[in-house]
Amino acid sequence: MRDQGLQNPTDKPLRLSGTRFTATYLLHGPAIDAQRAAEDLCIEQTIEYPADLVRDEGIRSQIFGRTLALDPVHPHLTRATISFAVEIAGGELTQLLNTLFGNISLKPGIRLVDVEPVPELIAPYRGPRFGTAGLRELLQAPTRPLLATALKPMGLPADVLADLAHDLALGGIDLIKDDHGLADQEFGHFRERVERCSAAVRKAAAKTGRPCLYAPNVSGPADQLRQRARFAKAAGAGALLVAPGLVGFDAMRMLADDDSVALPILCHPALLGSFVVHPSHGIGHGVLLGTLARLGGADISIFPNHGGRFSFSTQDCREIVQACRAPLSANRAILPAPAGGMRVDRVAEMRQFYGDDVVLLIGGDLHRSSNLIERCGELRDLVAGG
Amino acid sequence: MRDQGLQNPTDKPLRLSGTRFTATYLLHGPAIDAQRAAEDLCIEQTIEYPADLVRDEGIRSQIFGRTLALDPVHPHLTRATISFAVEIAGGELTQLLNTLFGNISLKPGIRLVDVEPVPELIAPYRGPRFGTAGLRELLQAPTRPLLATALKPMGLPADVLADLAHDLALGGIDLIKDDHGLADQEFGHFRERVERCSAAVRKAAAKTGRPCLYAPNVSGPADQLRQRARFAKAAGAGALLVAPGLVGFDAMRMLADDDSVALPILCHPALLGSFVVHPSHGIGHGVLLGTLARLGGADISIFPNHGGRFSFSTQDCREIVQACRAPLSANRAILPAPAGGMRVDRVAEMRQFYGDDVVLLIGGDLHRSSNLIERCGELRDLVAGG
Repeated sequence: MRDQGLQNPTDKPLRLSGTRFTATYLLHGPAIDAQRAAEDLCIEQTIEYPADLVRDEGIRSQIFGRTLALDPVHPHLTRATISFAVEIAGGELTQLLNTLFGNISLKPGIRLVDVEPVPELIAPYRGPRFGTAGLRELLQAPTRPLLATALKPMGLPADVLADLAHDLALGGIDLIKDDHGLADQEFGHFRERVERCSAAVRKAAAKTGRPCLYAPNVSGPADQLRQRARFAKAAGAGALLVAPGLVGFDAMRMLADDDSVALPILCHPALLGSFVVHPSHGIGHGVLLGTLARLGGADISIFPNHGGRFSFSTQDCREIVQACRAPLSANRAILPAPAGGMRVDRVAEMRQFYGDDVVLLIGGDLHRSSNLIERCGELRDLVAGG
Repeated sequence: MRDQGLQNPTDKPLRLSGTRFTATYLLHGPAIDAQRAAEDLCIEQTIEYPADLVRDEGIRSQIFGRTLALDPVHPHLTRATISFAVEIAGGELTQLLNTLFGNISLKPGIRLVDVEPVPELIAPYRGPRFGTAGLRELLQAPTRPLLATALKPMGLPADVLADLAHDLALGGIDLIKDDHGLADQEFGHFRERVERCSAAVRKAAAKTGRPCLYAPNVSGPADQLRQRARFAKAAGAGALLVAPGLVGFDAMRMLADDDSVALPILCHPALLGSFVVHPSHGIGHGVLLGTLARLGGADISIFPNHGGRFSFSTQDCREIVQACRAPLSANRAILPAPAGGMRVDRVAEMRQFYGDDVVLLIGGDLHRSSNLIERCGELRDLVAGG
């Protein structure tokens, strides 16, 4: 027999470091409900257990989330600042995601908009291996915008894609990535594509004397991720394309951390849209495609530019850019790569909006010309110098 | 010099099998826009390239998605039936997810609500190793609802969690899972917890003569997933808890397929909520937590029951249950596990709603008693027989 509920009957009381980090959430709903919603969140994201049944003082004072502030934004929107013990996130990106938004993803009306980068929280993550500075060094482009494009459409044979990659490199594109739909299909095998395209890009770079990085898409089965990355490295690929929405943020982190690969990582947002598209729910654009992408080791974060085929606003894009560049403990700043139906005629405007620490990712529009190499040259001229 | 756009200049024309599968989407917005939205989707999810620049007939006729039907539901909602070549999904769960909802996740107003289980699409996935029948055999429970609970709260030492697991097993619970917030924290190490809890549950099962499965949470770093699962197996755990939102659906599939582990998989919905909570966007409850969970090898799909702490409706829950049980090529049916603030006093109602092919997952409410073992016994009596 014992009393209702749980306590820690041992002589080993819980002793955490006392270091906590804050996460900021926007709570949609009447301000009068915000206090309860924040308290629910504090419990849901930690003990997920009836709080009244926990009588252990160590758990109550150290494990429970804490509401530090509730700031009304307007009558139906409250900004809640919640703190969690750093130990709860456990030094694992999976558990950090779980702590920040695991169970509450199942509730409408809650949006995670900021995570405080306390050093003890961030320290377990090696972060981007190259970042902005490392990429610029690799590409011998100290100040200008970098240029990227995608190999597509799916259905073309490897040798045709390789010819295309060759011409794009010859034309002056810095980064040539697989379209994220190129996987390991019967009509387009991963290994053949990676070997041919890597070789073609290196051949073109040897001709021009300018570095160019080919980034094959290694997003695939969990038990083949490392092998694909290592194969790509051995074949001479210069970077990797990874979609953390498909493989998990921590799988991207694993590839970034693999010293036997050591290639720049381009983060693709496939399947991640559901976290951001509803302003009243999910994870803020900056947190998801900036902060979490960096913790996951991305050197470049691809996202849909405003005014393209997708629905991101200028403010959404600004948040991503800020999170790519903001201090994040010892993590390197990374490059935003606005994409999604971008056109050569928008380059000037994009430079104005993003500045020059940016990757301009232009796909189909490059092909609206009878001479692809010349068209790339025109684009290159637009960002010349530096 | 060449013409604008791309074609396949080789003498190897694209030859796919011709087998296609349909995916059904709800398109929110004026019916007059539905045709264009569907065509956009057909392109966005396949070639992601200006369709007018593709002159290769093989790609146009075989790779492009096809709008098979547009059925108005009401003036602002259209049901679109789209077909894709099975080869595009490439036999990889990552690429299937990408094909179904990768880029269009970034657009509001689109919801994936059905995937046609054509055998060629489903064949690459081994699916649930146990399924409903296999779990019932393991647990010697041919017909009754299965009972599950969670070990929590985080912050308790391993020996206290183990004592708790022991009592829960003694009381007659069939499946005892880690809370999904138990990872490998400084205050709760994975290995110690798994060893102690596995041993405690086995000890209790030996006393009662009734099987009981302990399911540790193995959701963690990508490069430790297999090791954790294998460690759990070696320590005597009876099942695994995996959150595909945290680790990726294909990582769950990898663990389910690991013959050296061969344990039932409990799928936890952490971080997946953003796909389902907005009815006008995302992935339908049944597709995500039924169909995709099964393709990812889950034997049990945990989700928030209607009328609990979360917002799922009775219809949402019904869709999950249907998808857990529906024919899915050769895949086994699996058990739904409604959870999230469930109470013992709802068991009768839940049996009525779900039938007896269900896992009743009751957490904190079991602890609202001065005698946990007796409380479990009361619950067990409610589902006695079979």
